[in-house]
Amino acid sequence: MKAAIIFGSRSDAETMRGAAAVLVDFGVEFSSHILSAHRVPELLGETLEKLENGGVEVIIAGAGLAAHLPGVIASRTLVPVIGVPIASGGMGGLDALLSMVQMPRPVPVACVGVGNAANAAYLAVEILSLKYPELRKKLADFRAKMKADFARENEKEVKL
Amino acid sequence: MKAAIIFGSRSDAETMRGAAAVLVDFGVEFSSHILSAHRVPELLGETLEKLENGGVEVIIAGAGLAAHLPGVIASRTLVPVIGVPIASGGMGGLDALLSMVQMPRPVPVACVGVGNAANAAYLAVEILSLKYPELRKKLADFRAKMKADFARENEKEVKL
Amino acid sequence: MKAAIIFGSRSDAETMRGAAAVLVDFGVEFSSHILSAHRVPELLGETLEKLENGGVEVIIAGAGLAAHLPGVIASRTLVPVIGVPIASGGMGGLDALLSMVQMPRPVPVACVGVGNAANAAYLAVEILSLKYPELRKKLADFRAKMKADFARENEKEVKL
Amino acid sequence: MKAAIIFGSRSDAETMRGAAAVLVDFGVEFSSHILSAHRVPELLGETLEKLENGGVEVIIAGAGLAAHLPGVIASRTLVPVIGVPIASGGMGGLDALLSMVQMPRPVPVACVGVGNAANAAYLAVEILSLKYPELRKKLADFRAKMKADFARENEKEVKL
Amino acid sequence: MKAAIIFGSRSDAETMRGAAAVLVDFGVEFSSHILSAHRVPELLGETLEKLENGGVEVIIAGAGLAAHLPGVIASRTLVPVIGVPIASGGMGGLDALLSMVQMPRPVPVACVGVGNAANAAYLAVEILSLKYPELRKKLADFRAKMKADFARENEKEVKL
Amino acid sequence: MKAAIIFGSRSDAETMRGAAAVLVDFGVEFSSHILSAHRVPELLGETLEKLENGGVEVIIAGAGLAAHLPGVIASRTLVPVIGVPIASGGMGGLDALLSMVQMPRPVPVACVGVGNAANAAYLAVEILSLKYPELRKKLADFRAKMKADFARENEKEVKL
Amino acid sequence: MKAAIIFGSRSDAETMRGAAAVLVDFGVEFSSHILSAHRVPELLGETLEKLENGGVEVIIAGAGLAAHLPGVIASRTLVPVIGVPIASGGMGGLDALLSMVQMPRPVPVACVGVGNAANAAYLAVEILSLKYPELRKKLADFRAKMKADFARENEKEVKL
Amino acid sequence: MKAAIIFGSRSDAETMRGAAAVLVDFGVEFSSHILSAHRVPELLGETLEKLENGGVEVIIAGAGLAAHLPGVIASRTLVPVIGVPIASGGMGGLDALLSMVQMPRPVPVACVGVGNAANAAYLAVEILSLKYPELRKKLADFRAKMKADFARENEKEVKL
Repeated sequence: MKAAIIFGSRSDAETMRGAAAVLVDFGVEFSSHILSAHRVPELLGETLEKLENGGVEVIIAGAGLAAHLPGVIASRTLVPVIGVPIASGGMGGLDALLSMVQMPRPVPVACVGVGNAANAAYLAVEILSLKYPELRKKLADFRAKMKADFARENEKEVKL
Repeated sequence: MKAAIIFGSRSDAETMRGAAAVLVDFGVEFSSHILSAHRVPELLGETLEKLENGGVEVIIAGAGLAAHLPGVIASRTLVPVIGVPIASGGMGGLDALLSMVQMPRPVPVACVGVGNAANAAYLAVEILSLKYPELRKKLADFRAKMKADFARENEKEVKL
Repeated sequence: MKAAIIFGSRSDAETMRGAAAVLVDFGVEFSSHILSAHRVPELLGETLEKLENGGVEVIIAGAGLAAHLPGVIASRTLVPVIGVPIASGGMGGLDALLSMVQMPRPVPVACVGVGNAANAAYLAVEILSLKYPELRKKLADFRAKMKADFARENEKEVKL
Repeated sequence: MKAAIIFGSRSDAETMRGAAAVLVDFGVEFSSHILSAHRVPELLGETLEKLENGGVEVIIAGAGLAAHLPGVIASRTLVPVIGVPIASGGMGGLDALLSMVQMPRPVPVACVGVGNAANAAYLAVEILSLKYPELRKKLADFRAKMKADFARENEKEVKL
Repeated sequence: MKAAIIFGSRSDAETMRGAAAVLVDFGVEFSSHILSAHRVPELLGETLEKLENGGVEVIIAGAGLAAHLPGVIASRTLVPVIGVPIASGGMGGLDALLSMVQMPRPVPVACVGVGNAANAAYLAVEILSLKYPELRKKLADFRAKMKADFARENEKEVKL
Repeated sequence: MKAAIIFGSRSDAETMRGAAAVLVDFGVEFSSHILSAHRVPELLGETLEKLENGGVEVIIAGAGLAAHLPGVIASRTLVPVIGVPIASGGMGGLDALLSMVQMPRPVPVACVGVGNAANAAYLAVEILSLKYPELRKKLADFRAKMKADFARENEKEVKL
Repeated sequence: MKAAIIFGSRSDAETMRGAAAVLVDFGVEFSSHILSAHRVPELLGETLEKLENGGVEVIIAGAGLAAHLPGVIASRTLVPVIGVPIASGGMGGLDALLSMVQMPRPVPVACVGVGNAANAAYLAVEILSLKYPELRKKLADFRAKMKADFARENEKEVKL
Repeated sequence: MKAAIIFGSRSDAETMRGAAAVLVDFGVEFSSHILSAHRVPELLGETLEKLENGGVEVIIAGAGLAAHLPGVIASRTLVPVIGVPIASGGMGGLDALLSMVQMPRPVPVACVGVGNAANAAYLAVEILSLKYPELRKKLADFRAKMKADFARENEKEVKL
């Protein structure tokens, strides 16, 4: 059960921590890497090769602006790549979103919401659950607990 | 190795055929369903239950306009849900894209490009490959063949 | 004369208070609920059933991002549902607006402006006025008073 | 049980027919008017007065471009006004949508999707149902029949 | 040489001051009014009548959100109306811009940039200059001085 | 009473004819010119000088894409410049609209709706009316006739 | 004086021909290649190496949708890369534009307008002119001729 | 090896400093100028003439809002013009981006990302490298050093 989190600069770390926290909660082993599709393409290639040799099963990649990182990763690996568009500058992340989601076939990126790294990790857990029944069980428990917590916290009418 | 393709109206069938063709190519068994999150919520629930009991492992859902279908499916199942935004009317699919990709945690939809059902299927194949090594093999062969074909077709300079 | 205000998280309460204040002013009885279409679909169903049994006549629902809540509510009830798109992240609420307003037929959401919960409540009052002549009267008085106040406050030229 | 459909030019008639057809189906009496907020403000005022004297209970107004018509109507009446943004030119209806939905308080327009006049009529029926129990019954029957029809038409897997 | 500045709420005063300052500089007499197309349509009508009787020759109107004010004024007067879209909420003023500029014929609003009330006033001065040669002279002097000032301030290379 | 219509290429002529027709109706003398801010800046300068020497009082300029033409004209003349954004390519005219309307102070362009050359001409007529009372009279007659025509054509309910 | 034109699929050839025609007019030697950043990254790398060894001095790259091609090329070469966003699907090319222009430093793409391959070639000629004085001369002649042609064709008023 | 940096107002200096810093690093001689296409067209023309006489080889121009500056410069010179769109107001720089990038042929502006003046300078260096082999060498060294630095800084997994 191995994942990787890759992103382009230290300024994205705060956002990507949202993915790491979820993976930790679900006991998914992962490594984190700062890499750039355009600044260090060779290092990216080497790291992906190491990750694949190490058995990585899903990759979460976050990027802002032109946000090519997840697409470039997806072109170099066969494991599913989940993209997290990160808002940067005045476009509200629309630039990063379109740069990720509009990938040409047959090289998809599984895109989640702008800045929503936690959802990328939940998606990674769903994907890993295909193979690891114990993770599916954890996910079911998590959803059940989430529902129970939500219901308990909000069972009373809220006072506006 | 079981997938499902779900979409909201017969007018979306042409788009979703792009996903079916890829799944057929990879030998992934799948069923197709016209369902609506808002018009037949109960039937959707029943169908999802049947699909889960039948061992579905990934769901591809296409929708236009407010495009809630993939998100509603994702809220009711633990298998990965891949969303295909479909352009309808004058927004170029931006409405459907935002309605899918901006799902709240912890209920992600894995969004691909507008109208790009083929990419949804390639992503489904990547996801299933985690568990089915023979599919990973097919995917590697497919990519290798695609590269070879692309290279052969374009090895000569193109005449503009 | 019964309304309900439903929204998805505590962080939306500040916005939705704008609706509550108007309902209080008009003497419309209402209850408020934090509920989620995707996190607690069953609890949402139960609450809607209770509200309908209790005679709810109009529902105001606020949500951000993919903002499916009002649409999902509208699919499960026959009372009019008014949607309040809430800005969250960098899209200025455009994501929530499109996710609400572009609902497929025959399941409309009556959408008002981004963050304009007060207008949702004024619309609710207009709708309830169909059945309750005393509310129509209050609404006419309110508009008359608003005009008089506006006119009195601004009867003199403003100094720029 | 009286409604009115108002729109700005003959070129909008085709779109607005979608609302008329639904009102006819539900047996809601209505009149239709071509009027303009900016070209014939006085005639608009007179017509609204006549409609109110005649007991109109809900107004559906369609407009394109700057699309002020529903908002101007809403400022002159106390009955609920439902706005249908109509796509015209290259903006895909985004101009009309924003011009309608972003109305200032306390003068709301209940906005539905671009070109979705049918949904405006379904919303009108929901609103009228508050007062007319027989209409609520028809609406419940309609939804039940829609579900049954949808289910019957799609009970078998669709062949892609 | 008479102008008027009209806007919808005290919160717009800061923006509209930019127009007032320019009119003062050019010696154009003007009055300022807080008025609303939808909240006080009658008062708006009366004020416009007074302004016309008083010989107003150009009107500058600022508004945010659905921003109907300039268009409604334009429909009730024959003097040129200049619209200033004001950013409010998360749309950056795009909503107000489209609501103003997309007016149907034959009722134009002369739209300037978002929040650019000064430019509205410069446009008003250009328009008034048609009739008042002394104003044309002032405008030519102003432009000449602006050029000279700009050139003097920037004649040296700037140090970055 | 002299106007000029300027635009950038023969392909814009069809759109700009909408302005010419209105000017003819109102008896406003005008000349039409194909000119480009970027391709023939010197010719543009010479033409503007001739127009000014000939007593031009208002200029209507249409352009698509980056649409600098009206702004460049405005920077070289003191007469009011009215801009008509023309849709070209896939942006629906949003590119041309923003390129025109967002002009920096003190060089305004009076922007009308995308492709709405007729409205540019109505605005030109309103502006010229300041100085020519007979044109104001014609404009009042035109509006009165438009209202009467509109009312007569639509006095009966329309059949949907 | 060597350029290259690279694009992602045969369907882009029609657009890119606009660049080829200009390069031919200016006597710039060039080769054309169909290549994909994500489908044949190795072939892209090899081709770029060959081009560099052959002395390529500027590269024009066109792409649609996520449009990573120009950016990926720019990351692998030191020669200037000019990007042509190509409209595809309903976004009008905005997706391709943002995916190209928002490249992170220090890997710029010189972006031109959507579908404007001719402008990419004119820019290439300007860039090559730095080194090749005869090309600068041709460019000056071309501009002079363009001006003369434009002036001659449009010296008379156009009849609207 | 001579460049120029031109921008429209002192408020843009902070952004444009990003270009200056890169040019200094690469030893490219440059001058900086505050100029306006619309406020001081003559001074702009004179400055461009001086720059050309002085042997300028590439021009970087930054502007916000309607952002005509780079296009107007490009129409008056044969050296490559690189445009830096600057965000100003609520549009996130989309207005400036479209106003620059959508230039008509044959007058291209080489547009880089919103606010990304550093990338404009890197592009300028790439362009100058065509003619100055020593600069090409510096660029290769810079990229190699950047890669090495990036790799060294990020060779270890990052701790999230």
